[in-house]
This record gives sequence, C-alpha cells and structure tokens, in this order.
Amino acid sequence: MIDCGEGTQLAWRGTRLNWQRLTHIFITHAHGDHVFGLPGLISSMALMGRKAPLIIHGPAQLRPFLQCVLANFCQGMDYQVEFVTVDTTEHKRVYVDRSMEVWSLPLKHRVPCCGYLIKEAPIADHIRREMIDFYKVPLQAIKAIKAGGDWTTPDGQVVPHERLTTPAEPARSYAYCSDTMPVPEVAEWCQGVDLLYHEATFADVHQQRAQEVGHSTAREAAMVAKASNAKRLLLGHFSARYPDEEMLLREAQEVFPNTILAAEGLCITP
Amino acid sequence: MIDCGEGTQLAWRGTRLNWQRLTHIFITHAHGDHVFGLPGLISSMALMGRKAPLIIHGPAQLRPFLQCVLANFCQGMDYQVEFVTVDTTEHKRVYVDRSMEVWSLPLKHRVPCCGYLIKEAPIADHIRREMIDFYKVPLQAIKAIKAGGDWTTPDGQVVPHERLTTPAEPARSYAYCSDTMPVPEVAEWCQGVDLLYHEATFADVHQQRAQEVGHSTAREAAMVAKASNAKRLLLGHFSARYPDEEMLLREAQEVFPNTILAAEGLCITP
Repeated sequence: MIDCGEGTQLAWRGTRLNWQRLTHIFITHAHGDHVFGLPGLISSMALMGRKAPLIIHGPAQLRPFLQCVLANFCQGMDYQVEFVTVDTTEHKRVYVDRSMEVWSLPLKHRVPCCGYLIKEAPIADHIRREMIDFYKVPLQAIKAIKAGGDWTTPDGQVVPHERLTTPAEPARSYAYCSDTMPVPEVAEWCQGVDLLYHEATFADVHQQRAQEVGHSTAREAAMVAKASNAKRLLLGHFSARYPDEEMLLREAQEVFPNTILAAEGLCITP
Repeated sequence: MIDCGEGTQLAWRGTRLNWQRLTHIFITHAHGDHVFGLPGLISSMALMGRKAPLIIHGPAQLRPFLQCVLANFCQGMDYQVEFVTVDTTEHKRVYVDRSMEVWSLPLKHRVPCCGYLIKEAPIADHIRREMIDFYKVPLQAIKAIKAGGDWTTPDGQVVPHERLTTPAEPARSYAYCSDTMPVPEVAEWCQGVDLLYHEATFADVHQQRAQEVGHSTAREAAMVAKASNAKRLLLGHFSARYPDEEMLLREAQEVFPNTILAAEGLCITP
C-alpha cells in the first residue's frame, strides 16, 4: 500500500482484500493526509489478531510520530511494526521480493517527499498442458521450460519453448507521484510505465499557486505522463476548491488523452 | 464534542454543523478508537482558517500523543490547541459557561477513563409580548421579569411573573458513559438525566467477557439507566461480533423499556 490517510482502515473494509496480507506500506511524506490512518490501521490489525510483521517505509520525518503511536497505544501487540527510512533524495530500489520491485522517486514538495515506482517481476510463460502430455515431458523438466528453455526428447528432437508454452502477460508497472511539483526526472525513471498516478491539485488558472505550495496542475501532470511515455495517467489529490473535477481532466487530456480521474475505491485493470 | 475517533472530521462534513464553532472536546480515555480522529480534525481546522483556540479536556495519558501530533504536524497553525487534564478519579465540574456545565463521571475501564455529564443551564422564561404591551412594561424591566420577577405597575398593581411569561423548556441533561463496566455511582451522579448514553459492548451471553475487558452488557447498561431514573437510554459501542444489535436492544429493554440504539449521524430531540 502507498500512503495511509485517515479512514484507510474503513476503506479496506469496503474492499474484498484481506488486510492481514498487507505486509509493506510505503509512505511518501509526513503530512497528515498521507499518514493519519496509520494509528488506527496498526491498532485494528492487532485487535484482529495479526501476527505477521508490518513494515512501514518512509521519510525519516515519520519516525517520531510512529514511535509516539507505538509507545502510547500499541503496548502488548502480538506483532511487530518496523520502520525503514527511505532517503527521499535518491532514486533507488527500496524493496524487492520474487513478485515485484519498489523504487523511490525523489519529488519536490514542501517537506521531504518521494513517490514510488512498482515494477512487477517478469511472469513465467504458461505451460501448454496438451504439448507436455504429447511429448511426455517429465515433471522435473517443467520449471526450466517455464523459465524459457526448450525441451530435448530422449531421441534428440529439440522442441522449442514457443511450442510448449503460451506467452505470459507482460509484467506491469505503476508509478505514484504525490505530492509534488512536476519533476522532469520522473520521465526518465518511469519510461513506458503502464500507469502513472500523478497529483493534479490545481487547474491552469491556479498554476502560480501550485508552484508556491509545491503542487502540480493537471496539465503539468499530463506533461510528465507524455514525457514518460506512460500508457495511462491517473489524476488525483484534487483541491476541494473545484466542484467539478472534469475541468482538470479536460486540461490534462489536451496534453495526454489517455487520462482518467482517481476516485474512492477505483480498481484499474490493465 | 465528546471523544474523537478516526473519521470524525468526515462525520462532521456529513452534518449541517459548523465545526469552527466547536470549541471544547472532552475525551473519555486514551484508546485509539476514541482519539485517532484528533490529528486530522486539528490539522483540517487549521487548513480551513480556524483562529479560535480549541480546548481538549481529557486524562493525562492523552497529553504525549497530542504533544507529538502538535510538534510534528501542526507547526505554524493560526490557532492554539490547549490541553486540560481531567482527573478521571473525581466527580467534579470540569467546565462551565453561561449555557452549560460539564461534570466528570469516574468510570471503570482498563485505563483511566471518565464519562461526562452535560447539564444545560436553566433557560429563562419567554416574555409574552402582548402582556408587556398591555401593561406598558419598560424595556429595562424585561430582564428581571425573564429571570423570574413580577412587575409592579406605576399605580402599585403587582402583575405576577406567570401572567407576563410562558414557561421555558426545561433545561436538558445528557450523560455519556463509555468505555466502562457498570459503575453504581453513575446512578447518583446522573439522577433524572434526560438522556443516558451507556456503552453496551456485549450481550448477556458474554457477561463474563465484559467483566474481563472492562465493558458492560446491554442489560447492565439498562440497570444503570433504571437506577439513574434516566428518561431515555441510548446504547452504543457494540462488539462487532453481533451481526444483529437488536438482541442487545431486547435485552436492555427487558430492564429499561425506553432504550434506543445509537447509529452514525443519529440526532436525538427531547
């Protein structure tokens, strides 16, 4: 999960996801609207019997708040909360497991802040069961074939990988950039990203205000998406001053047509 | 306001109330589900331009959390947050203004905890305009009549208070008791209260569990209401284990028929 604003535990309850499977939270910056859901989430997970550690990654500024919450409200919990400091000034890999990598994306806001780029690990090709049966491939050979190998039959015939498998779905990538002024380097770091979430606090008419408070306009977000050759742009973090976010969408789409607006509970499939 | 769980600022937005008029918050105890809405409420009020001080009353255990939130997220706010320690072991007046008094109600929970009794100040009787006109009562005499006085005409006729006024609505009282085991003294402190909110975490079947974790059953809440000669009982703080809170209501109503269930956004008129 990225960021944890107030009410996050309630939002989880509205999904079909099992929050006990949530093991890592990546925090972009220590502003209340991005972290005030942590105390409740941490406490409620304890009440629900969580045992597995929860690792929270984020800028150093978050540590005293977490320490205070843990010291005052989380004594005697059955699980550990670990905090891992993220250097918000460096673009580097901050997490890896067998299914994904997470990279930090240094951003420009009023406080130390970084976005995150999540890259799915390449997925193995799918075995075609009927071909495995046909060539009588033994079980122990399957792993090498899935990983890209051919198969040589006992009589020396080479069956190419492509005949034994169907191609896997391409690995997906997601970049999350909030809160920030437009950062040109994001386009380098996120070239070809499948989905770019970028904050779009303001409309064109408040472009100067955006600069003053360390935010972006929808149009600026779209320019980052275009330079990134992103496949899709997701706008969010809208100022409450706009009763109609469609204006932000229109301004972004003038630059980058494949743009959509974020909404509570929105689920996006490739 | 009494207590401030996560999401309170959102709940306010769902009402027609102006939260800039909220000046005092009374916290019963330093458990997350009663205080995790404070950071967001305090921060959002600052963003919305609040200038008036906000006074938070509560047990001493709350102070370090508040200090941590103020130090890490509330630098440069345009208004002051003051914390006033409430001694949770004493039944005493903790607040008074011209329209109400607030009294602490020592409760029994796993941590220092007190409820609050809010007593509306007596309301002045309503002047009958037509009688004032009839007797030609001068403006400067009105205040004394509203406060209970008679009026003596220039020729010595005494016009009784009752002829000049209609009776005010009786002053109202509200007691809030959560989280707690049943506390017999509550009945003394809250004799004749108009509305008693009492926690009812458990049903009869979990009476022993209630004792172990410092909570009440619905039936026990009803017994407190009966002993208090309360006019009405409002049950809340239901354990999530009961899909149907009607069972709690039925068990309470066997002891105290005028019982209702609390619900998000419920507004109760006398």
